Amino acid sequence: MAVGLGSFPVIPSISGVRFAAMEAGVKKANKKDVVVFELAEGSAVAGVFTQNQFCAAPVRVCREHLAKAKPRYLVINTGNANAGTGKSGMQNALLTCETLANLTGVALEQILPFSTGVIGEPLPVAKITKVLPDALASLTSEGWENVGRGIMTTDTLPKGSYRQVELSGVTVTIGGISKGAGMIRPNMATMLGYIFTDAAVDQLALQALLKDTTDQSFNRITIDSDTSTNDSCIAVATAQAANPVITDFTQGDGAVFAAAFLEVMQELAHAIVRDGEGATKFVTVEVKGAKIKSDATKTAFEIAHSPLVKTALFASDPNWGRILAVVGRAGVENLNVDTVSLSINGCEIAREGGRSPDYNEEAGQEAMNPAEIHIVVDLGAGEESDIVWTTDFSHEYVTINAEYRT
Amino acid sequence: MAVGLGSFPVIPSISGVRFAAMEAGVKKANKKDVVVFELAEGSAVAGVFTQNQFCAAPVRVCREHLAKAKPRYLVINTGNANAGTGKSGMQNALLTCETLANLTGVALEQILPFSTGVIGEPLPVAKITKVLPDALASLTSEGWENVGRGIMTTDTLPKGSYRQVELSGVTVTIGGISKGAGMIRPNMATMLGYIFTDAAVDQLALQALLKDTTDQSFNRITIDSDTSTNDSCIAVATAQAANPVITDFTQGDGAVFAAAFLEVMQELAHAIVRDGEGATKFVTVEVKGAKIKSDATKTAFEIAHSPLVKTALFASDPNWGRILAVVGRAGVENLNVDTVSLSINGCEIAREGGRSPDYNEEAGQEAMNPAEIHIVVDLGAGEESDIVWTTDFSHEYVTINAEYRT
Repeated sequence: MAVGLGSFPVIPSISGVRFAAMEAGVKKANKKDVVVFELAEGSAVAGVFTQNQFCAAPVRVCREHLAKAKPRYLVINTGNANAGTGKSGMQNALLTCETLANLTGVALEQILPFSTGVIGEPLPVAKITKVLPDALASLTSEGWENVGRGIMTTDTLPKGSYRQVELSGVTVTIGGISKGAGMIRPNMATMLGYIFTDAAVDQLALQALLKDTTDQSFNRITIDSDTSTNDSCIAVATAQAANPVITDFTQGDGAVFAAAFLEVMQELAHAIVRDGEGATKFVTVEVKGAKIKSDATKTAFEIAHSPLVKTALFASDPNWGRILAVVGRAGVENLNVDTVSLSINGCEIAREGGRSPDYNEEAGQEAMNPAEIHIVVDLGAGEESDIVWTTDFSHEYVTINAEYRT
Repeated sequence: MAVGLGSFPVIPSISGVRFAAMEAGVKKANKKDVVVFELAEGSAVAGVFTQNQFCAAPVRVCREHLAKAKPRYLVINTGNANAGTGKSGMQNALLTCETLANLTGVALEQILPFSTGVIGEPLPVAKITKVLPDALASLTSEGWENVGRGIMTTDTLPKGSYRQVELSGVTVTIGGISKGAGMIRPNMATMLGYIFTDAAVDQLALQALLKDTTDQSFNRITIDSDTSTNDSCIAVATAQAANPVITDFTQGDGAVFAAAFLEVMQELAHAIVRDGEGATKFVTVEVKGAKIKSDATKTAFEIAHSPLVKTALFASDPNWGRILAVVGRAGVENLNVDTVSLSINGCEIAREGGRSPDYNEEAGQEAMNPAEIHIVVDLGAGEESDIVWTTDFSHEYVTINAEYRT
């Protein structure tokens, strides 16, 4: 049911990054479910993680390891989130790292573990550690689609994106993969996202860029308002390209790099929404004319979360009263309903808080029919705006989530 | 699909209250859609209304009229919410009041108008005013079920409740009706609720009681997190009974009356949840062990709103990890996940942030099977608690809301 999500792009090799995707039997049979990334020595690595206080064991380990050492390996399993698993969950996350550290001769703290899947069930750690030797033996820098598939859960398609830009005459590549289709309301990062570049980027600058672009990509998507316990997004710069080290994104090479990086981040974030559980629409919710930015942000998210708006989107029903009702309860202080206007795919539906004089149902219906919907709410109170991307709410969403564990 | 909602109770006549339910053709043919209540002169009337800033025209009129005069008539239509209708909406609400005022000889401000139904379409006011003379001619004090049906929209069953108590040897009756099945996350009041008593109750005391009991009933239910533009709840005390006027609810007659009043309010609120759109479960979410009450309240509401929890409830799937994931993102400051425990219908599932040692899937499945589900989350951090009532999220919900206007 993915909406406008094309085939996986042919991402070029990124010097300094090798990977492998294995079948460990954590998920279903004949599905790749363990992915290992090897990073060149000296790579700058940045990470943002879920703000859910019930974060998974691997998220805790990642945070600790990132603070202590320069990562050399990422190890990811799907099929089990290793969340809500208490002390044994921490032990299993560390055991995975320890096994990989022993096999490669790097320090335990140079391994970052990631898990995604069912919450609350013990991690079948032996299945994962068993495939690690074969994973290391088959490391390659080609075939990104394999690792894209290797981190999928309820995703119907693998998700990848890349850009190439010239920095002082040197061509560098930025490429990445993401996953996620449900429990998507990222808060600092999404379910899983990995972005790699061969460019040389200063470590602190990379962390700042990741945080900033996350706020314009993964932190602005929502499928069902449920923040995951396992959200993690990692950026790696291997410095294998000969560009001068980037330390500043406001001008020159840095600005070029940051723009391409943001495009990759947004494309990966949008891919998650396009493949949202049961999605039949890709919806852009833009709120402008706000007095303060947080008014725009919260109103956009409230619209994107409303089950009534989402079911109307599923039905392609221009039931705009439901959108205005959400605007009215979104918590905007001193909202003047008489200055609010609303348009959908360019069709003005409401003006001054009521139906537009020229509006008719046929025009509204036509605006709602496409698979790509752009809702614009103008609060008419100021100059601030924000954008959130989301999906509709379909029967398929209920089916997927009612039958997830069966 | 209503869950455990019995047949409409035989509410006794309440002296000082007469009513009529008419077919005006606002809703479908052959459906009662206009209700008129006549209140005895001198009745104390209290009201609480939606906090949605996009409130409907009749809500604005109600607030103004209540501040100015003692109401003598309530006039309610279903099928059209008269919300998002701008200036003409206000004119139509006032025209309804004016017509009824002229027919009865009371002041315009003594009429309170209410509307519920589709948002954003012009109120067919002529259809409503046309039936008012017949409504006045057929006023009666018997047959509450007719008015219960007359205010229904997507409700599948009418909702009523009553209690009788003795105050200083005088038997008084408290009876009421409510409606609502979707767009239910009341904020100060629910879609529509009307509670009447023949007891003599001081006006200010009645307002305080209504506000207080609303917070323990209508303000603690949620079906889909969408706060309506038309929420209104009205309490009327006609003072036709000979009890000494109640001014204080902390002791004696007042305490007896308040307890019965709360029971009626809660029964009417629960009826809305039991008849929630597509509901197959009646779910009580109790959060205890909180440091401050607001932590318990917001955690309970977040659990009740989570689409992932609601679809798991629909599937009778003890997917408790989803509940813990919500607890982790509910915004409780300094949450210690290691002290959190969870039980469902008495079956302890999680303890100290992880799966209980004695838990097994069969026990969890058995706990999830009944139509009435009681979730208890203990944060293990203090003595505060709160309770919210909600439903599951089913295919039927999507169907109802995707096809609402077709």
